[in-house]
Formats: sequence, structure tokens, C-alpha cells
Amino acid sequence: MPGLFIVNFLTVMNSITEPTLLLNEDICKANIRRMAQKARKNGLAFKPHMKTHQSAAVGDWLRNNGVEAITVSSVKMAEYFAAHGWRDITIAFPCNVYQIDRINKLTEKATVTLLINNLHAVEVLQKELENAVKAYIEIDTGSGRTGLSIQQLAKIKKLIQKLQRASSINWIGFYSHPGHSYSARSSQEIQTVHESVTEQCRILADKLKSEFGTFDICIGDTPCCSQGTGFEGVDAISPGNFVFYDLMQVQIGSCQVSDIAVAMACPVVDTYPERLELAIHGGAIHFSKESMLIDNNESFGLAASQTENHWKIFDTKTYLKSLSQEHGIVSCSKDTFNQFQVGDLITILPVHSCLTANLMGTYQLSDGTILNQMSSNY
Amino acid sequence: MPGLFIVNFLTVMNSITEPTLLLNEDICKANIRRMAQKARKNGLAFKPHMKTHQSAAVGDWLRNNGVEAITVSSVKMAEYFAAHGWRDITIAFPCNVYQIDRINKLTEKATVTLLINNLHAVEVLQKELENAVKAYIEIDTGSGRTGLSIQQLAKIKKLIQKLQRASSINWIGFYSHPGHSYSARSSQEIQTVHESVTEQCRILADKLKSEFGTFDICIGDTPCCSQGTGFEGVDAISPGNFVFYDLMQVQIGSCQVSDIAVAMACPVVDTYPERLELAIHGGAIHFSKESMLIDNNESFGLAASQTENHWKIFDTKTYLKSLSQEHGIVSCSKDTFNQFQVGDLITILPVHSCLTANLMGTYQLSDGTILNQMSSNY
Repeated sequence: MPGLFIVNFLTVMNSITEPTLLLNEDICKANIRRMAQKARKNGLAFKPHMKTHQSAAVGDWLRNNGVEAITVSSVKMAEYFAAHGWRDITIAFPCNVYQIDRINKLTEKATVTLLINNLHAVEVLQKELENAVKAYIEIDTGSGRTGLSIQQLAKIKKLIQKLQRASSINWIGFYSHPGHSYSARSSQEIQTVHESVTEQCRILADKLKSEFGTFDICIGDTPCCSQGTGFEGVDAISPGNFVFYDLMQVQIGSCQVSDIAVAMACPVVDTYPERLELAIHGGAIHFSKESMLIDNNESFGLAASQTENHWKIFDTKTYLKSLSQEHGIVSCSKDTFNQFQVGDLITILPVHSCLTANLMGTYQLSDGTILNQMSSNY
Repeated sequence: MPGLFIVNFLTVMNSITEPTLLLNEDICKANIRRMAQKARKNGLAFKPHMKTHQSAAVGDWLRNNGVEAITVSSVKMAEYFAAHGWRDITIAFPCNVYQIDRINKLTEKATVTLLINNLHAVEVLQKELENAVKAYIEIDTGSGRTGLSIQQLAKIKKLIQKLQRASSINWIGFYSHPGHSYSARSSQEIQTVHESVTEQCRILADKLKSEFGTFDICIGDTPCCSQGTGFEGVDAISPGNFVFYDLMQVQIGSCQVSDIAVAMACPVVDTYPERLELAIHGGAIHFSKESMLIDNNESFGLAASQTENHWKIFDTKTYLKSLSQEHGIVSCSKDTFNQFQVGDLITILPVHSCLTANLMGTYQLSDGTILNQMSSNY
């Protein structure tokens, strides 16, 4: 139905009075469908990370693509999705043993997989767990954030043995977030990271199989899951950002601009012809302060127009230049500047959709529906 | 009562299980008292900005220091504080005419002062306002963000004339946020900005008084209000960040570390002896991604210990090095690293307290009380 999308979104735009996060349902569902198909094609379990959208409704779109197990980044997020019917939840964050009471409550209604990276956590959990949990050990495949390197084999073996002796814990394998894929700048560079990661997974399996039998390995970054080819050694994937993508993922090489599913609509509150800048209502408490270099300018977003079925960047000279708490300043090319006046709305693609979504709390669909996130209704 | 503070805060620390924003009430109240006294001493109206704390309870501490008029950054924040008894509210953001219905509702119970920077806003307001409002014109005294420069005198005069012809609008003067004080790196450099700002205020008054009589000028940045001396030409101040301060304000020269009133307490979830790093539960959705250079390292915060009545930085080599959505990585000096193990809490001073507070939503006091913000109870 050509033209339907633009008509609907324009109607919604007429009712917007403050910074609003628009979600293009068609693009988001296409991103989900593509990733679910890729997982199926590669024989991988698909356990998407819910941290980007934090929304039960978007969770339902995943469920409609056959998803049964999910990944989250906190106990709080696990509680929210458990309350929305999810029964197989991996908390992909080094287990915070302070939260044992909430973990115990959670295991009453869902199968919970924890990331357990150290002996201290095993000891506390073994003493305090009221129901069984599953456990991954996190491996650091190059991101340098959290987890054990495959070089630390003695430490890994000791931890597996300790986990296997813990009667309430069922050790199932390894989890890795190859966050170093974020420094890639093309599909080829992503593939290089991906090959190194999958190779490490195979080495780990080779080194441990005689002693510990078979186990699962789950990897979870959007760049490798989007662009990587060849998943030998990997059993499951848990990307998160792919549901929305963003400018950072375009720069990395994970996606095209036309795959970005969210954009901020912001009122223009002042114009500065002498410096070709617009002041907008939309600041650090809406976009977050995540920035990236675009054409050598530190940018917090790029202005875009709406086409029939996606957003289209005006030009890379029309960018969100600075943010204070509620204010945004958009630096414009001359052509773009002349298209805006006080009282208009401007649409801006975010640098990092996860942080923007987390701050905004709700999504505006083109048909007028507003979707809530866990922070807005839980 | 020496020792009381530390005893109380340690008790609270025993109950913390997740990232928590601690608020030292004594330091915050001392910051408020000092600024209120400075305003009085200089014959200035004190209209503090509420955007940093966004909390009715902290508002009451300001009220106890004689504050009757406040400043906010959005209509939503004005609604929240009006619901908590404030009757004189300046919305220090270029008027977003899309919000006319909410502005009309607000003016039923409070005297509202708007920032009106362009003719379009005057026209819409004159047509749509149901009750009278006051108006400031915003002047750009050097920050380059929003407002008219004093060089644009013809434009300013035309705007005043238009405002004066609008029967529902009572033009009362000028507002400026000298945000360029944030590039200062000492009290002396702040004073240089401050003198330039106050001089511009006096020039403006001189140039306009014959035609328009007397009017008020309000300035609102924490560095100038904290360190500036000599306020001739200024009638009111509206700083916000000073209630809490933060590492950025220490770097600017606005305050000492001992004036910082908020700190994040975060669980240590993993340790990496080979690289002297701690993994903590505390990420971009808790701290925000505001960073600054400390000893040439990009830092998102500095670890601190608690002393009797304030927080004390361990050393500048123990800093929050990177943030993902929920994870923080603390790079440590060897001495500091050895003080922490999995299961401890670490306290971290934020780079930008306004954004951290906005994300956290509540404050934990040392006596166990939890204070809500507008986002948590409104």
C-alpha cells in the first residue's frame, strides 16, 4: 500500500508537542524477521537481548518469529519480562549476588540462566539459591570488558568443576559479548572479528570436550550477528540492538540507514540564521550523550526526513551538534536550514538507540499507538 | 556529633543491592545555605534552577532558605513543582508553543515566566494564552547556545515592542545562561567570564533604559554564581547544579571535591587482577555517558571512600574507564585495587550530577530515607 506509511506518520506528527521517539513498526519487524531467519538458517538458537527495546510489545513481535528464550541485562529486566510470560531468561551480566532474594523469586516462575565468572559467586549462590538455575561462564573473546579469556584455561576448568559440584547450578556452557566488533568500520572488518570469535569458541570446545563433554556457546553482539558468516562453534546468538539499529551501527557496517527503525521527533524552538543553527527541544535527557564522529564533527544525531517507508538523512552537514539537559543545537547545511522555522518538528536519527530508548520510556507508532517500556509501566 | 555520619551511611550501605545514588544531606544543605547567603549579600533575587535535583524534598530545603521563586527547564517540571506548592516559576527554555494547553493550565495556579526569543512565539501566545504570563527575552552572553546577542539591538527592541503590545504578556527583562563559563579551569577564569557577562548586562540596561525604563536581568550558571564576585547589572540568579556539584564543577573551579553532595554506590561484580580493573553494576543508564579528561584519561567518574562528613577520592588513577548499558569498568591503582573484591560496594563521584540524578530517579539519604524525583512519583 504505497503512501500509507507517510500519511499515517504525518498524522501522528501533527499531535506531537514534545520530544517523542518514533518507531517504524515495519522496519523493526523486518529486522526481527531477518535475524530470526539467519539464526534458523545457521542452526542457531535465537535468544534476543531485550535491553534495547525493554518493551513487552516488541517482545511479542519476537515471539511471533518463534522466539522462546530471551536475554536481558539485569534482574529487574528479567522480572519485567517474566511478568509478561517469558519462561526462559538469560541474565547476561556477571551475577550480582546481592540480588539473591530477587533471583530466588524469579526462579519460581522462569528458567533462569546466570553468568557466573568467579568462585565467590558460586559459593554465595550454592548457599542461598532456593531453586535450580542454569549457568554460563562468560568468556572475553577480545572486548576486554568482562569474562575470562580462553588463555585462562586453568581458571576456567576450576570454575567449571566448582559449578558442577554446586547442586543447584546446572552449568551449560559459555557466553560472550564480542564488544570489540564495535571498532569495525565495514562488513569485512566485522567478519574479521567474527572469525576470531568463532575460532576461540571452537578452540575452547576442543580443549574442554574430553574432560567436560559437550556444552553450548552463545555470542551476542549486533555487528557479528548481522554481518558475520559462518557460525561453526556457536550454538546460540543473543543480539539486541538489531531490532532498531542506529547511526553507530551504520558506521560499524552492521546495517544501512534504511534499517534504522527509531527516530526522535523534536520541536524547533528557535532559529539562528547567522550561524545556520536550530535550537530544538531535545537534550541529553532524551538522546543521551553518546556521540560519534561524522565528517570530523562530534555528532549526537543526524537530521532526517520521512519518506514513504523509512527515514532519509538530509546531508551529513545537518547534525545534532551539542546537547545540554533539555536543549539540542542542530547545525545545518544552508539548504536544510531554509526548510525549518520555529514551530516545526525535526526528525533526528539517534547515535545509540539503546540509550535513547532507555531515556524516552515509550514509543510512538505511525498508527498513533504508544508502546510502553518496563520503566513506564512496571 | 563526630562519627555519626559515617555510622549512618555505613548502615545504609549494608542494605544496598544495586546501583544507588547517595545524597549527603549535610553537604547539600550547606551548598544551598551558602548560595542563598551570597544572593542576599549581593542584593540578588534567588530563583534556583530545579533541573539538577528534580525533587520536591530538595525544593523544601531551598524553601527553608527563603526561596519563593524557582526556575525549571520544562513545562513538565513546572507542573511537578506547581503541584508541590510553588507559585512563581520561570521556565528557562525557549518557549515551545506546542505546549500552549499545558501552559494555560499551569497559569491557573502559578505565576509563570516564559523565555520568548522570537516573534512567532509572541504571535501564538497572544492568540492562545488564557491567563497572563511574564516574559524574559533570553540573551546569549557568550555561550552560543540560545538567545539574542546584545549586538542584535534592533531585533531585541522589535521583540520588546511586540511583547509590550501583547496584552497577555508582561515583559519583565532578560535571562541568560552563561554556559561558556564551563570552559573555565579556575576561579580566576570563571571571574573573567563573569565580568564579561555582567558588563553585557549593564550595557544592555544602558542602551534600553531611555526607551523601555527599568527591567530585571537574571543569570543562571553555577560557575559564575559560585565563584563570581561583583553582580552590578544583575538582579537575580538561577543556578542549579550547585545543590550537588560534581567532578566537572571541580575541574571548572566552581567548588572543592568536599562540596560534592552525591555519589553512586555500585556493587563490584568481578575483578581482573591482571589488568587492575573492577567490573561494577553501574553503566550508561545509571551514570550517563558524560565524560571528562582526568590525568589525560577519559573518565566517567572517580572512585571515592567515605570519611566522616564527605567523600574522598582514592587517587586519580582509580577512575570509571568505560560504560556500557549496565556495566562499568573501574581502572585502579594497585593500592586501590587491592581494597576491593567481588561482593563489595564501591562509591563513585559522578562527572555530571544533573544527568546522573535524572537517570537514577531517587536519592538515598544516610538515615535510610529515600527521596523521590518527579519521574519517580509524578
